[in-house]
Formats: sequence, structure tokens, C-alpha cells
Amino acid sequence: MRLLLEGLTAEAFAPFGRVLDGAGSRPLLVNQRRATRRDLVGFAGGTGRTALARYDVAGSALPFEIALLEQHRLSDQVFFALDGATALVVVAGTDADGSPDLTRARAFIAGPETPFLYAAGTWHAPLFALAGGGAFLMAMHESGTPADCETFELTAPVRVEQGSWDAGIG
Amino acid sequence: MRLLLEGLTAEAFAPFGRVLDGAGSRPLLVNQRRATRRDLVGFAGGTGRTALARYDVAGSALPFEIALLEQHRLSDQVFFALDGATALVVVAGTDADGSPDLTRARAFIAGPETPFLYAAGTWHAPLFALAGGGAFLMAMHESGTPADCETFELTAPVRVEQGSWDAGIG
Repeated sequence: MRLLLEGLTAEAFAPFGRVLDGAGSRPLLVNQRRATRRDLVGFAGGTGRTALARYDVAGSALPFEIALLEQHRLSDQVFFALDGATALVVVAGTDADGSPDLTRARAFIAGPETPFLYAAGTWHAPLFALAGGGAFLMAMHESGTPADCETFELTAPVRVEQGSWDAGIG
Repeated sequence: MRLLLEGLTAEAFAPFGRVLDGAGSRPLLVNQRRATRRDLVGFAGGTGRTALARYDVAGSALPFEIALLEQHRLSDQVFFALDGATALVVVAGTDADGSPDLTRARAFIAGPETPFLYAAGTWHAPLFALAGGGAFLMAMHESGTPADCETFELTAPVRVEQGSWDAGIG
């Protein structure tokens, strides 16, 4: 099957997660009114720890194929571009038996002004970056068990092609 | 008293915290060898939660004055530039009675390629940004108690002046 890339907007991405640009968060005046703080994510405590990691992702050219999806059932997962890179984000729905539902798959392009969060349990491809690649900050809560990351091999690859996304990211 | 700005390097900043550029972290191949992961920070679980927040910081011109310091005894605190902004980082030592020791104060300038972490308990000024300001991602573990952020009013202001930093950030 094939997917056409579309721009990652808060509305389009809502079934899968959230945009973390701070819009919709109440601004708090901090630092002697020199700054505003907008809360984006709160990872719950309990067992395990919240990991912050740098991902350096090699560039991929369009079209490209996806053969594997992954999910993190225990935590949301967050990516912020650190050096202006553009992310290619492929997500799917979830069947009644818990496996990916490709009939609800979507492919998004997220510029550096659009950090994003996969909701816990959302099936997604490991992150791709546009040709040139780039660095991303990853954050999630990790329990240290295999449930932190589960994978699913697709029986047929999904081909991701350029769509109307160039209109979507202005 | 006055402080001269210097470049924020891993060595110079070691008494106060760490640089989070991934140097010194073991790279793990992930995403079907398309990416490397370097772990930067792990916030411990337990009570409370890890907060990720966006800070939009107004620009400050040199020289500027500091009248207040703060510390987070329970957690390291992390800042990543999101849109190319340069941070002005003022830190101090800690006296035997727990109050700031200004004889060990330093002022650093951290470009966007230098994300950084204040070690838990390190006295520091609320974040400043160079004229123009900018957006930063803040991360720390928060307990929801007053110990998350304690402040100290200085009896005399500290004046931060341009030093040799322009040589320091190349």
C-alpha cells in the first residue's frame, strides 16, 4: 500500500498524539516576568525513569518504504528538532486485537517548528528525517521492561510518497 | 560585584552541571541503523512527575544585573534552545549553610549547539537570553512541593558584563 505525505497539524494529528508548540497551554509568567512558561508534557512518576536522549537520524529520500512499526504502551513519546531538521512521521490505527490497523495509517511531515508527541500505544514507524537528516531530542518514560518498545513486522511494505505536504507546512 | 561572560564548555561548567550535546554518551544504533541514540538525562521516578515545558524568554542586553538566584534541590534542570537562541547562564557556589557563595559565581554564554543541565541544588539566575530572546525546552522532575524551586534575594546586585565569550563560542 502507499501513503501520501501531509502536513502535521494539531487537528490532523489528533487521533495519534499532539503537537507540542505550546499553543493551547496556558502561559505562566516566570523569571521576573521576563519569560512565559507553557507546560507541554508531564510524565508520571512511579517505577522507571524519564529518559531524555539525542537522536541523530540519517536522511531519507522520497519515496521510502516502511517494513516495521513500533509502539510504546506505557508512555507517550516526544520528539523536538534540535538543528532545524524535518521529520517524517508515519502512524497507524490499532485493531481490536492490538495489532496495527493500516487502513487508518497516515504519513505526516513535521518541520522544526512542530515538535510532536505520539500518544502511548500509537503504532508508528521509527522516526525518519528528510534528506540531510538531523538531530532530535527524544523524551519518554521508560520502565526498563520489554513493554517500553514493542515491534510489528508488516507482511507487505508501506510506500510513503510525496503528497500535498508542501502546501501544509507553508 | 561583576562577572565577565565566558563560553559554556563542558570543562568550565562541570562544577555546576553538564553540557547535553551527547558527547561522552555511548551511541546506540536504533531505527534499523538509521539513527544513533545518545542518552542525556534520566529523571528518577517516585513521587511527582517529569515536566517538559516551553519557555519563551525575552531578550536582555549586556550588561545586565542579577538580584535573585534560585535552586532546585530535588532535580537536575535542563534547557535546550528550540529556535537558535543564545542563553546567558549565571551560577554560584553553595556555602556551608546552604546559601549562595558568590565568590564562586560564574557567567556563561551558551549557543544553541550547547544544551545544558544545572545539577540539582546549584544556585543559578533564572534564565536570560541575548537580545532578541528565544524559545527553550525546559525539563525537570517536579514533586509539587515548595522544594521544587527555592529563591535567594541578593543583598547587592551582580552585574554581568561582556567578557571573552566571543572567543569562547567560536
